This record gives sequence, C-alpha cells and structure tokens, in this order.
Amino acid sequence: LSERRLLFTNPVLLRDWKSPLRYLFGPGPSNVPPRILAVGAKPIIGHLHPEMYEIMNDIKRGIQYAFQTENNMTISMSGSGHAAMECAVFNTVEPGESVLVAVNGIWGERVAEIAERMGANVHRMVKTPGGYFSNKEIEQHKPVLFFLTHGESSAGLCHPVDGIGDICRKHNCLFLVDTVASLGAAPIFMDKQNIDILYTGSQKALNAPPGTAPISFNERACHKMFNRKTKPVSYLFDMTHLSNYWGCDGKPARLYHHTGPVSGFFALRESLAILAERGLEESWKKHKEVAAYLYRGLEDLGLKLFIPERDLRLPSVTTIAIPDGYEWRELLAYIMKHHQMEMTGGLGPSIGMVMRIGLMGYNCEKTNADMALNALADALKNCKKSKA
Amino acid sequence: LSERRLLFTNPVLLRDWKSPLRYLFGPGPSNVPPRILAVGAKPIIGHLHPEMYEIMNDIKRGIQYAFQTENNMTISMSGSGHAAMECAVFNTVEPGESVLVAVNGIWGERVAEIAERMGANVHRMVKTPGGYFSNKEIEQHKPVLFFLTHGESSAGLCHPVDGIGDICRKHNCLFLVDTVASLGAAPIFMDKQNIDILYTGSQKALNAPPGTAPISFNERACHKMFNRKTKPVSYLFDMTHLSNYWGCDGKPARLYHHTGPVSGFFALRESLAILAERGLEESWKKHKEVAAYLYRGLEDLGLKLFIPERDLRLPSVTTIAIPDGYEWRELLAYIMKHHQMEMTGGLGPSIGMVMRIGLMGYNCEKTNADMALNALADALKNCKKSKA
Repeated sequence: LSERRLLFTNPVLLRDWKSPLRYLFGPGPSNVPPRILAVGAKPIIGHLHPEMYEIMNDIKRGIQYAFQTENNMTISMSGSGHAAMECAVFNTVEPGESVLVAVNGIWGERVAEIAERMGANVHRMVKTPGGYFSNKEIEQHKPVLFFLTHGESSAGLCHPVDGIGDICRKHNCLFLVDTVASLGAAPIFMDKQNIDILYTGSQKALNAPPGTAPISFNERACHKMFNRKTKPVSYLFDMTHLSNYWGCDGKPARLYHHTGPVSGFFALRESLAILAERGLEESWKKHKEVAAYLYRGLEDLGLKLFIPERDLRLPSVTTIAIPDGYEWRELLAYIMKHHQMEMTGGLGPSIGMVMRIGLMGYNCEKTNADMALNALADALKNCKKSKA
Repeated sequence: LSERRLLFTNPVLLRDWKSPLRYLFGPGPSNVPPRILAVGAKPIIGHLHPEMYEIMNDIKRGIQYAFQTENNMTISMSGSGHAAMECAVFNTVEPGESVLVAVNGIWGERVAEIAERMGANVHRMVKTPGGYFSNKEIEQHKPVLFFLTHGESSAGLCHPVDGIGDICRKHNCLFLVDTVASLGAAPIFMDKQNIDILYTGSQKALNAPPGTAPISFNERACHKMFNRKTKPVSYLFDMTHLSNYWGCDGKPARLYHHTGPVSGFFALRESLAILAERGLEESWKKHKEVAAYLYRGLEDLGLKLFIPERDLRLPSVTTIAIPDGYEWRELLAYIMKHHQMEMTGGLGPSIGMVMRIGLMGYNCEKTNADMALNALADALKNCKKSKA
C-alpha cells in the first residue's frame, strides 16, 4: 500500500468561499431566518437518542398542526418533496393498480412518471398550466389513488380541494394532495377535507433549508398500505420501517432503519415551532394580504397576472404573464445582476409563459414586495424590448 | 373558510430545548466540528444558482480525491447512505438480472433486500459477522453486479478489496463497494482497485451531519446504466437526471430535477475540504494509530477484540466481544448516563455479539480513546456481573 501514490490533492477545494447575499423571491427555496439557521447549527446528537425521539415527536405535532390533522401516521421524510412523492405512491399503490393524476403544471407530470415506473396503470387528466378540474370531471374515473396539486407553483394556481375527498371516498379511492408550495400560505384542512395523504416540503413557507418533507397518512391510507400483497419497491421509503423509526407503529422499540438528517430535523422542528407561534390563520392572512399588495403593484406596472381568477391564485407564488416584447430570461438575469434577487421563469409546461415571484413565510412582507416591484420596474425600464 | 375552527395549537412545540452534550463514540454519526457546523449555517442560496454549481463542482473534486478516482460521474446523493445504496442498485441492475451480495453483517443484507424489491435475482454469500470472503469464493458466480462492504461497521471488519475488481472485470460484472464506515479511515483506491461503483456517507469520518452521500460510477458502470432497456424504478434516484443536476452529462444546461439539501451540501463541501487539507495518507495513518492505541487500552482492561486478525480490523469502528457475565445494554446505558458518551451494541446479525467504539475523523484522537477507555473501565467496575 505504501507503494501506491495518491492520485492528486485538491487546491481548488481549499479556497475560501462566501455565501452571496440573495433575496430568494422565487418559488423556493426561500430565505432561511437566522433563528432556523442557528438551530440547524446546534451540535448534533445521535439519530436514535431519546432526545432525538423527542424532537421527532415535536416535529410530528408540528406537522399535525400545520396539516390540521390528528393522524398518528405523521412523519418527515429524510429528503426533499420528491422523496415524499415517491413515498406516497410507492406505499399506497401496487403494480397494476390504477392511478389518476391531475396534470396542470409540472407536479402532476412528476407523480405520473413516478407511478408509471413502479408499474402502476396511470391515467392523466391534463389541462394547460393554470387550468383546474371540476369535481364532476374527477368523478369519471375509478383509480385506487387520485393525485392533485394544491399549490401548483409552476402556474401559480391554488387548486380548490373541497368536495374532492368525498368523491374519492365514495369510490374507494385514496386522495393524495401536494402542498409543497402552499402549506402555511393557503388554508388546507387535511382531516376536514378528507385528504388521505398529504405532503409538503421544508423550504417554502416553512423557511427551513431543503432536505426534509413532512407527510401524513390517515387510517384509510394506512389500511391500504399496510395490507399490500407486494413490498414497496424502495426499502428506504417503506412506511413499515419509517413508521417504526418515527414511533408511529405502536411498537415499544424504534429500530435502526436509516440515519435521518439530524441537523435538518433540528431546523424543521424550529420552522414548525415558528408557524405554531404565529398561528396558521395569521400566516394565511399575511400571505393573502401581501399577495394582494403585490398584485396591485404589478398591475400598476402594467403587468398582467397569469391566473385571472383572484381566488385561484396561489398566495405564496405569484405568476405574471411575460410582458409583450420582452425576453423573460433577460429580465430575470437583470434582476439577479442588479438586485441580487431571484425571480424565476416557468417550470415544465409553463416555461415561456410566466415569470414567478415567491414571497413565502419569513419573506412574506410588504417591504419585500416593494423591493420586488422596484427591481421589476427597473428591469422593464432597462431591458430592451424586441421589435416583435 | 372563516367558519372552520382550527383543530388545535401546539404548546409543546413552543418550549425551548437544548442539544445535550454527547460524545458520539458510536459507529456514527460522529461529532461535527464547529467549523462544519458554522458553514452549514451560512445563509442559503438557490439550488440552481451558479455559485451552488461551483460548490457542487468542489464537492465532486473532493469526492474524487477521497475516493482516489478520476471518474467524471461523481456526485452526492441528497440523502443518507441508503439513498446511495438504492441509487447504485436501481441504476445498474434491471429486473431479472443477477446480483451477488456478500453478506457478513448488516449492509449486505440491506443491499440484497433492495435488489430483491426491484426485481433482481439475488444470490447471497453469507458469513457470520466478522467473516470475510476469499477471491476464489467470489469467482464462482456470474452476476451483473457484485456487492461488498469495505467497512462492515456492524462487525468492525475492514474487508480486503485487492484483486476482486479484476475478477469482476474478467466476468463482465460490476463491482460495487460500500465505504460508508471506512472512507477517510482506511485506504481505498477506487481507480487502482478497479471498483466500478463506490459510495460513502457524510456522517462518519467525514464528520458532516447525516443527509448527504457521495457516490461515483466509472465508465463501465456508466455504460451499463445508460444503456438500459427499462427505466430505474425511482425517478428521484435516476442517474440520467442526477448526472445532469451535477453537471456530469456534458449537456450545457442543468435542469431542475429535485431540490438538493443546500445547507447539507455546504457542510459536505467543508468536510471534504478538511480531508483534502489534512491529506488522505495522514488521515489513514491517524486512524490506524489511534485504533492501535485503543486496542492496547482495551486489552489492558482485559477485554477481547472481536476481530482477531489485526489487519482486518476497521480502524474507525472497533468491536469488542461482550465481556463474560456482563449485560451489554447495562454497560452502554451506564456509559451514556455517567459519561454522556455513546458507544453501541451490535447491529443486525452482530447484536448480542459485540460492543462498538467509533473514533472517526474529528473524534479520532488519543485523548478521546482515553476518555472512552476510562468510561468503559468505570462501567466494568460499577455494572453488576451476572452469576452466569
């Protein structure tokens, strides 16, 4: 071994770097408040220490409050929103079963792809970005799982949820809802709205760093997922193991499954505590008010909101129709360069259709809306209009 | 909506909590040095900002150095070691193909389970914990993938790797090696040892918080995984997308796939920079020296090391045969209670056979070995011996 020479050392890695100032006013991640950063930097403890279980129990309580649910089967994934997506589909659907996916932006498309890969029979209901589905349309299918995005961040749409859970129940179908971009910003009542599986991400209105994703399953969902004929394709995302790790399976001991992101859970706990301190109603109200303030400012700049129906707009992420004659990439690059501010273009099917401003949680303040409007006005003034 | 009453608020969540002092001298996570905690608490930036790509490029360089590889296809998973395990198997194996797994502790069993769930034809070569495999035994099978754990932390074994890559190459089989518990502590040369896929975790000798997991694929592995007939079962772990996200696919643009753990990547970059500063040879030497010092101290206490062959012992995690007449759970609980120190029992098949002391990276110091020995001596003195 001593005869082996090392390949190389790595001078680039040794240089110092600074985290640049960024106003993260896109669709997420949003800026993380110092209070959450500080808690995320506390010395770590073991992932299976009793104090860690207490933190996980607190997280569970915090998610129950944020989701408005009493579900025992409430945990956080050790991963981003996509981990929660895969967990939901992998556990509740078996190969060959039918899944209905509402696709009106990017997230439905993702879930459809995930379900197809694990062998489900996927039916897509497709609308253009910003489109929404009537309860009547939804009722025409007979899947075991129906997926809907509550906060369709790629289009800036907040989809109505009332009544859909009842339809699903009537047809013995599970109702899976994505609230990654909407949780804490727009009302959702998991239990009262009969949502069977709900998930979100940490890095939007919750303002924690990305890397954890709350998810909850009700009794109906648990019944389906714990009475499978086949094992889920993923061991890491198997709820039999995750429910034990989170102390939700009623067993006396929690066994080692995987090593959870200890610091990420510290931060997630703090973000949920902040939401609980503030109160959900106050948080929803604030997002609605700041969004309304932003709408007025955008209209004053002569810009057109992409979602015409005010009640369907997602309060956390506002979509603007790309102003005539402008190149959207140029506007966004200008704003980043001159204002250190992130706004973004569309995503998936909404690319080239919209620009997006996200003001979520900690960032959701009228002063930030003013900064965003000022940056946008500056860009509109200084970026070239094409002849078209 | 205003008529809906909120379910409850959450007083428990609002209480303050402290992260207790813990000497994490188990098999990981290990203590995170203040320098890494501080970098992990830097204000975040967007997961798709150019500065983030630079950090990801630095991580790639750091992994290449730590793995001793020039592989372009070198990334970090947004998840723990199990995410890397699933990524390796999901991408390089198709349903119906044969996988050979060396099981001599817990990790092989995990990989076998993962491969079975995605439809592979799994053959297990089983030894009791601490057992190891001869190159001759390995050669008798004809799989598409052979899995071996370099650092079998459940048994404290560091498995020899030389020659196995050549056998695999001869039989057109990919060689997958787990170095979660050994990287930085025991020599590994990915390129020179003809390892086709290598992964590790962030929370062992690298001393970053858990939640990221470096992985690298060589040309042979890339050829197999990018010429599949079927899509991998996981969209989140699909290397077609992950390679683009990490700028490894040669395409000009990185597209949104999932949101990586920005703070976790900050911390991982710092941990790799620390390893590069120190140098691999120095790190290997230090682990070997401190381990040897610990062995002497343990023998002076009349304890028996579980792995008799000194050269096969894993320098980062030392296993002790449970001393006659003692209840291991009682010893460990005593050490935690009176010394705020984590040591652990066995894991999987080694439960009831061993106690484990991990001194990794930042924790790998003779002073810490002294503390561990002192705590152990105290426990042996004060815990009751049974009559047996």
